[in-house]
Amino acid sequence: MKSSRKTYPVDSTKSPRFAGVSTFARLPYSRDLTDVDAVFVGIPFDDATTFRPGARFGPKGVRENSLLLRPYNPALNVKPFDVLNVVDYGDVDVVPGYIEDTYTRVEREFSKLAEENITPLTCGGDHSITLPILRMLSRRYGKLSLVHVDAHHDCWDEYFGKKYNHGTVFRRALEEGLIEPRRSIHIALRGPLFSEHDYGEVRRMGYSIVTMQDIRENGLDAVIRRVKTLVRPPAYLSFDIDACDPSVAPGTGTPEVGGLLAHEALELIRGFAGIEFIGFDLVEVSPPYDHAGITAMLAANLLYEFLSLTALRKRQTPTSGETL
Amino acid sequence: MKSSRKTYPVDSTKSPRFAGVSTFARLPYSRDLTDVDAVFVGIPFDDATTFRPGARFGPKGVRENSLLLRPYNPALNVKPFDVLNVVDYGDVDVVPGYIEDTYTRVEREFSKLAEENITPLTCGGDHSITLPILRMLSRRYGKLSLVHVDAHHDCWDEYFGKKYNHGTVFRRALEEGLIEPRRSIHIALRGPLFSEHDYGEVRRMGYSIVTMQDIRENGLDAVIRRVKTLVRPPAYLSFDIDACDPSVAPGTGTPEVGGLLAHEALELIRGFAGIEFIGFDLVEVSPPYDHAGITAMLAANLLYEFLSLTALRKRQTPTSGETL
Amino acid sequence: MKSSRKTYPVDSTKSPRFAGVSTFARLPYSRDLTDVDAVFVGIPFDDATTFRPGARFGPKGVRENSLLLRPYNPALNVKPFDVLNVVDYGDVDVVPGYIEDTYTRVEREFSKLAEENITPLTCGGDHSITLPILRMLSRRYGKLSLVHVDAHHDCWDEYFGKKYNHGTVFRRALEEGLIEPRRSIHIALRGPLFSEHDYGEVRRMGYSIVTMQDIRENGLDAVIRRVKTLVRPPAYLSFDIDACDPSVAPGTGTPEVGGLLAHEALELIRGFAGIEFIGFDLVEVSPPYDHAGITAMLAANLLYEFLSLTALRKRQTPTSGETL
Amino acid sequence: MKSSRKTYPVDSTKSPRFAGVSTFARLPYSRDLTDVDAVFVGIPFDDATTFRPGARFGPKGVRENSLLLRPYNPALNVKPFDVLNVVDYGDVDVVPGYIEDTYTRVEREFSKLAEENITPLTCGGDHSITLPILRMLSRRYGKLSLVHVDAHHDCWDEYFGKKYNHGTVFRRALEEGLIEPRRSIHIALRGPLFSEHDYGEVRRMGYSIVTMQDIRENGLDAVIRRVKTLVRPPAYLSFDIDACDPSVAPGTGTPEVGGLLAHEALELIRGFAGIEFIGFDLVEVSPPYDHAGITAMLAANLLYEFLSLTALRKRQTPTSGETL
Amino acid sequence: MKSSRKTYPVDSTKSPRFAGVSTFARLPYSRDLTDVDAVFVGIPFDDATTFRPGARFGPKGVRENSLLLRPYNPALNVKPFDVLNVVDYGDVDVVPGYIEDTYTRVEREFSKLAEENITPLTCGGDHSITLPILRMLSRRYGKLSLVHVDAHHDCWDEYFGKKYNHGTVFRRALEEGLIEPRRSIHIALRGPLFSEHDYGEVRRMGYSIVTMQDIRENGLDAVIRRVKTLVRPPAYLSFDIDACDPSVAPGTGTPEVGGLLAHEALELIRGFAGIEFIGFDLVEVSPPYDHAGITAMLAANLLYEFLSLTALRKRQTPTSGETL
Amino acid sequence: MKSSRKTYPVDSTKSPRFAGVSTFARLPYSRDLTDVDAVFVGIPFDDATTFRPGARFGPKGVRENSLLLRPYNPALNVKPFDVLNVVDYGDVDVVPGYIEDTYTRVEREFSKLAEENITPLTCGGDHSITLPILRMLSRRYGKLSLVHVDAHHDCWDEYFGKKYNHGTVFRRALEEGLIEPRRSIHIALRGPLFSEHDYGEVRRMGYSIVTMQDIRENGLDAVIRRVKTLVRPPAYLSFDIDACDPSVAPGTGTPEVGGLLAHEALELIRGFAGIEFIGFDLVEVSPPYDHAGITAMLAANLLYEFLSLTALRKRQTPTSGETL
Repeated sequence: MKSSRKTYPVDSTKSPRFAGVSTFARLPYSRDLTDVDAVFVGIPFDDATTFRPGARFGPKGVRENSLLLRPYNPALNVKPFDVLNVVDYGDVDVVPGYIEDTYTRVEREFSKLAEENITPLTCGGDHSITLPILRMLSRRYGKLSLVHVDAHHDCWDEYFGKKYNHGTVFRRALEEGLIEPRRSIHIALRGPLFSEHDYGEVRRMGYSIVTMQDIRENGLDAVIRRVKTLVRPPAYLSFDIDACDPSVAPGTGTPEVGGLLAHEALELIRGFAGIEFIGFDLVEVSPPYDHAGITAMLAANLLYEFLSLTALRKRQTPTSGETL
Repeated sequence: MKSSRKTYPVDSTKSPRFAGVSTFARLPYSRDLTDVDAVFVGIPFDDATTFRPGARFGPKGVRENSLLLRPYNPALNVKPFDVLNVVDYGDVDVVPGYIEDTYTRVEREFSKLAEENITPLTCGGDHSITLPILRMLSRRYGKLSLVHVDAHHDCWDEYFGKKYNHGTVFRRALEEGLIEPRRSIHIALRGPLFSEHDYGEVRRMGYSIVTMQDIRENGLDAVIRRVKTLVRPPAYLSFDIDACDPSVAPGTGTPEVGGLLAHEALELIRGFAGIEFIGFDLVEVSPPYDHAGITAMLAANLLYEFLSLTALRKRQTPTSGETL
Repeated sequence: MKSSRKTYPVDSTKSPRFAGVSTFARLPYSRDLTDVDAVFVGIPFDDATTFRPGARFGPKGVRENSLLLRPYNPALNVKPFDVLNVVDYGDVDVVPGYIEDTYTRVEREFSKLAEENITPLTCGGDHSITLPILRMLSRRYGKLSLVHVDAHHDCWDEYFGKKYNHGTVFRRALEEGLIEPRRSIHIALRGPLFSEHDYGEVRRMGYSIVTMQDIRENGLDAVIRRVKTLVRPPAYLSFDIDACDPSVAPGTGTPEVGGLLAHEALELIRGFAGIEFIGFDLVEVSPPYDHAGITAMLAANLLYEFLSLTALRKRQTPTSGETL
Repeated sequence: MKSSRKTYPVDSTKSPRFAGVSTFARLPYSRDLTDVDAVFVGIPFDDATTFRPGARFGPKGVRENSLLLRPYNPALNVKPFDVLNVVDYGDVDVVPGYIEDTYTRVEREFSKLAEENITPLTCGGDHSITLPILRMLSRRYGKLSLVHVDAHHDCWDEYFGKKYNHGTVFRRALEEGLIEPRRSIHIALRGPLFSEHDYGEVRRMGYSIVTMQDIRENGLDAVIRRVKTLVRPPAYLSFDIDACDPSVAPGTGTPEVGGLLAHEALELIRGFAGIEFIGFDLVEVSPPYDHAGITAMLAANLLYEFLSLTALRKRQTPTSGETL
Repeated sequence: MKSSRKTYPVDSTKSPRFAGVSTFARLPYSRDLTDVDAVFVGIPFDDATTFRPGARFGPKGVRENSLLLRPYNPALNVKPFDVLNVVDYGDVDVVPGYIEDTYTRVEREFSKLAEENITPLTCGGDHSITLPILRMLSRRYGKLSLVHVDAHHDCWDEYFGKKYNHGTVFRRALEEGLIEPRRSIHIALRGPLFSEHDYGEVRRMGYSIVTMQDIRENGLDAVIRRVKTLVRPPAYLSFDIDACDPSVAPGTGTPEVGGLLAHEALELIRGFAGIEFIGFDLVEVSPPYDHAGITAMLAANLLYEFLSLTALRKRQTPTSGETL
Repeated sequence: MKSSRKTYPVDSTKSPRFAGVSTFARLPYSRDLTDVDAVFVGIPFDDATTFRPGARFGPKGVRENSLLLRPYNPALNVKPFDVLNVVDYGDVDVVPGYIEDTYTRVEREFSKLAEENITPLTCGGDHSITLPILRMLSRRYGKLSLVHVDAHHDCWDEYFGKKYNHGTVFRRALEEGLIEPRRSIHIALRGPLFSEHDYGEVRRMGYSIVTMQDIRENGLDAVIRRVKTLVRPPAYLSFDIDACDPSVAPGTGTPEVGGLLAHEALELIRGFAGIEFIGFDLVEVSPPYDHAGITAMLAANLLYEFLSLTALRKRQTPTSGETL
């Protein structure tokens, strides 16, 4: 932890959780990056979805449903807000109706974060928003090892005659040289496909693939081991909430039945402890289709686990003297 | 009515309303324009909204909630489906994330409709979709007299540095010479504005304005008389469902409290009988924010009234020998 | 009030309204008719609806949303539960899928109520349930003067080749000689019709008609005066909640935009004070389509007004010595 | 695949999924059975349910939530729409309030389908609609081997003094000689029963039973093996969505906690590959109780799996030359 | 406006309304009261409601639904954020389960606001939260002239044997000498009462009463004139959202059918221009029972009108040189 | 079973489940405790929740969703209503806003039940309501062995400076000497904690702990064995519905992702057969956040299992001659 500034969530045993302005995990809202290690940042863009919109309200929904988070993560044995200075950075000002202009705005903000070596916990928005993030992070850190958890591989070539879209992001990223496909993997794939050549094409690009059927047959441990073997720093984790089953995540744009249950999603992420991720995103939470905030709450908890992974790594670095 | 083909809704005393594929008013779904007088056509684009999305599901929602419509309109004393051949033409294939490409697609379809002199009953989508319609209709019919019913004047200049948007459509239309502002009027305006110069600017463009406060003070009859005095053929009617109060139309993108009640909206439209409209749109119905379909049902009824206005005019033309 | 037994709602200043088993107005639940003047009774049948079902949960929904009712009606200046012994009688055991068998069951229960001169406040169910009630009441009291408040006249002849249905009930009642049409009236009619002959046919049957357009033009007072002139004892009031606008009553099977607002519905019913109704029904409340119980709450309040009308009459009879 | 006509879903990479009239899987809507191999057909009848209605909107809901389906099924390695000509046939015109008349209408439509050897993918409606289907199919194909996946065995004798009902359908089918019970099985049974003799009686009828407890103890593979051993052609698969847990299928009439999860339901159906089913139904989807369409979406995916089973069989027949 | 600090909402033509942390009207969130003229402040307490809870989420809901507010109020011709420095002060930390301890916390915060002569725009919470506000404001400004808009008079004596409650607040305020009843008025009363003596008792306390029936008969202008005649500075305005009809405000704890429509509520408040209010509250918004945020959006607009009233007064004071 | 009185649910094959006043499992509503073995009793108090309210409607919601329960439990092979006389006792009259007064009311009712040796099946309300129950039961039966199934241990010391709260109940119970911690266990714990010392502290109090992680690693059988080893009569079972995953139980106040699935919760409870529980509670069901009643339905089924456990024990006692 850096020295001069300490950010901390509001104490929910003193101030009730339902009180006040909603920020992620009740953290301070601040655009000041001094001494900051990680930020929660929203990209409320949902024009590039091919079915249900609403992910533009994803960041607001996740903030609202992150209020129950507490400071200690017993599963990973870490207090992320003790180890790291974290703020809610607010959202990027996107441009509705103009995906490419939106990309420019995202890049402007993320180049700032990258320069300061701040770990972004980005909350979408639809999956199209990952491309400009990858651009800025790979510019700063070099080619990335991608861990992509999603029902869909998002490596299609185009939709409606257009290259930029929530279903094409990891083909574009590859073409732009942002990702090292041999060190990258798509996890939780399932559902009907456009063609019998779909998975083959993705593999030919160099990517590894783990389907839900693989997970049901071989278990999560096998996936985690495979990821750990495959991935090299700098790594990036992109989590589409539709990796999870509609029963645990109804509030999303292109749901796919038969996905990860909530405890499986948590177990998977916790299993990644030790991997050197330099950034994370959690996308496709669509509050208008959510109920009782369960999707956004799951998303908030996954982001908390991402933060815990970062805190674990931070704790192990020589300059950090914290002990639990 | 043209001679060789007769389209008619499914008879709901024989086949229950909840049975079958949902088309507008249970009309035939057809892309064949032979002998067609009017079409229901959807433009499911909602990327240009500045707040809540969901209007991309507007056409589907309106179809689903148009199933209770019956063949005779007692308020206007006309049987629109007897007088006119009407089909559900389906939707324009829009391009999510690309408003200008979407405009091209809309123009392609509407130039076909315009060429055939078919009256379009367009269902949005957000209000941005009106611009390409006006382009094609004014190209065919000349400068249009606009009747615009909406909580917002939609004559702002730009949002987020962009010219095309659901809030700028009637400034663009003016700049492009599609509309005759001295023969055009905005009705049901209300709510906070960006500036004290807002209404003044709109008036300086040449438009007339009727606010909800005017309506509450002077009544709907006064508005109707004013519209009838002002408007000249060819006229176009654009109805944003947020002209109506959130209590009768919760399912919309930028609701504004204090609007028209349902019976007032119906009365207003019925009052327009006699005006020579060559097209209509009904925009901004957002089913994810609707409840029990009440917004979409009101929209369906307004579209039915639009159709009835067209049928009334048709009936009065020399070539038509129908009597009720 | 009869002497030996006094029923009264639970006192909501002592026991919170959200506590306990839900009965209408927190009245005792009882099948014992001793000393009872009026009953709330449900007929949870919705198979005969031609669009949205759910009215089978109408009685449960109305009970749940009647918990805020208090003992004094200031608008009519009467305390109905002081003047009358009222119980929640429970529901008739209907037969799903078999409308005619259901009628038999309803008749069995209502002949008991009629024999005891108990005023029924019936809660539907769809409108088909009114027919067997009218049968039993007219058998006991003679031909009835009907006041029917509804968006639809329900005098159609058949649907799907069948005579018994929620849209045919007042044609059947006429054919069976249960109603005196010259003393009967349909109020709040509106919306598209099957034919230009619809209203004419209903008038030819002898019924009077008041449309929503009439109400908007002439006001509620005119309607009330017309009803009072027309109606003679024994009178019956049948209120379909779709007489009201979808904004105040979304939870119904065949909503029709442009109806009565809540305060107008209350004013209409209160205007009926003095008419000698021997029974009432409130039908077509469909909780699955309701929101926050607003439809059921309006229905509960209308039933409370019906009860108040009965209490007013009771108070004026010589054997009653109550004063307010 | 037959030669002269080829039906195919709309291409969702060209036309957005949210565009147009909603048919099952975006297939053509057609009553023309020429060259058709299988049909999606709805029976929107829900009067025979003993608890929550709404299944009359099941076919509409499933259509609306089938729009994400894509042409290739990777789990079964088949492209069903390449192998088979499939259309959305629309719905049977049922008779609300009259179950037995409804049966007549269903029989009329299904005798046509049976004559043409078309595989029906029927979407209910409540479970009562399976009886007339079984009547027509057994008349055409002989006694059927039934695979029934459901929380309830639906072999009760009567409800409310009536024989026809959603809970009595498989006792009636047996009495009518439509089913070979020794070759038939009920799967996923659970929940409280009317009597300690319930399961015994069903077994005495000759049926096999697999409870959820059996599934939890022995796994799905054991069930699949047992089904494959037991069943003989001609087989019929009837799937009540309440076989699934309320968390994955809240939108149903008589939910029962503790059922199949979504991935388990898919695995079960895929396990049936190779069984010669001549028809399928998916019943009891009730959209008014659904959320974000998750129940209808699961149903749509199960129907897609049913279709894939049919395509697999078709592909293996000598006249079919397709390879994947 | 004070000189050194200027607070202003985020510009929604630059940053989309759906972006960022939600504060009231997109104002800065700040606990710093330097140069502040007015604050939005929440009191998220709902334990004292006698029916539906949820008002503890009122402040969050109102923030979320205030994002469409713009800087100029055309109805009152004022730009409140130009005239006044306004911040979102956050919420008071209430004590769930302990109403009297909550009062202490509220008093602590409001004595600070009162000392600084800051105009509070308080957002409840249930109506019980008004009592500690009145205590602090009357201590600072003397006996208050109360304008109370509500379906219920809230002058009952006790519920469940307790004196502090959302239904007793204006009897307590009177007993504590905080209010001058002869200068105070209850507006929009309606619905069944506990006793025929209810209104009489309230009048005997010295209060004036305007029922909804009065409003329907005499119009809003009459009410406004009466209020202006009656009220004297220092005045306080307390608005319970259940003054409005459930159709425009379903999200509330004790709804009462037949209330003010949205445009009437706005007209009423705007009519109060000129009255010297030193504070305002808006209570009983319960988001769990709201739909599409329509209740919270109406509440946000009413708070904006309250602010505009304050800005109008400010503009007229000698030290203010602004012109519109 | 006691001799002179026999209570039984309404027969749902005669009277449809959707008919009548809703009581738990359609049992008689009665305050008469003569010959009663067990009662369903509600405590509709939710002021002590630290996040979402609504549990005050828990008892009503559970009643409404218990209507599908049938008389025979095949999983435990017992007919609880044959073995036991059970009534719906209604609810305790709580005091909104006053937790300690509410405790007094609860104690008054439960001392009556305890004196009569009646097994309470209590339905909350938030978890704070368990404390007064434990007080009365331990006074009657001595120190209790607690089985607590919950996402949270509820052993915190205070919130907002207060000792009584839904998160402190089992620390208070210990301090008051109501529980034998060495014979007590918390099951299903998970989620972020306030401190790294949380679990340690609870263990130091003497309690055993089983986390969800333990359950996922070792299975439910291991938990059940551990409970059976640990627990001694008199035992008490307190089940917070948030022990279950939000996908199966969205309607609760402080949901925690990754919990028990529905079939696991049932299996756990059934595994407790043989333990001598003298009482049960099921708390934190919050209907305003529920969907399609799935949370309340799960709660109703769990209560039915609790009742079945009691019936099993009863059947085995010498005075009981029933056989199945």
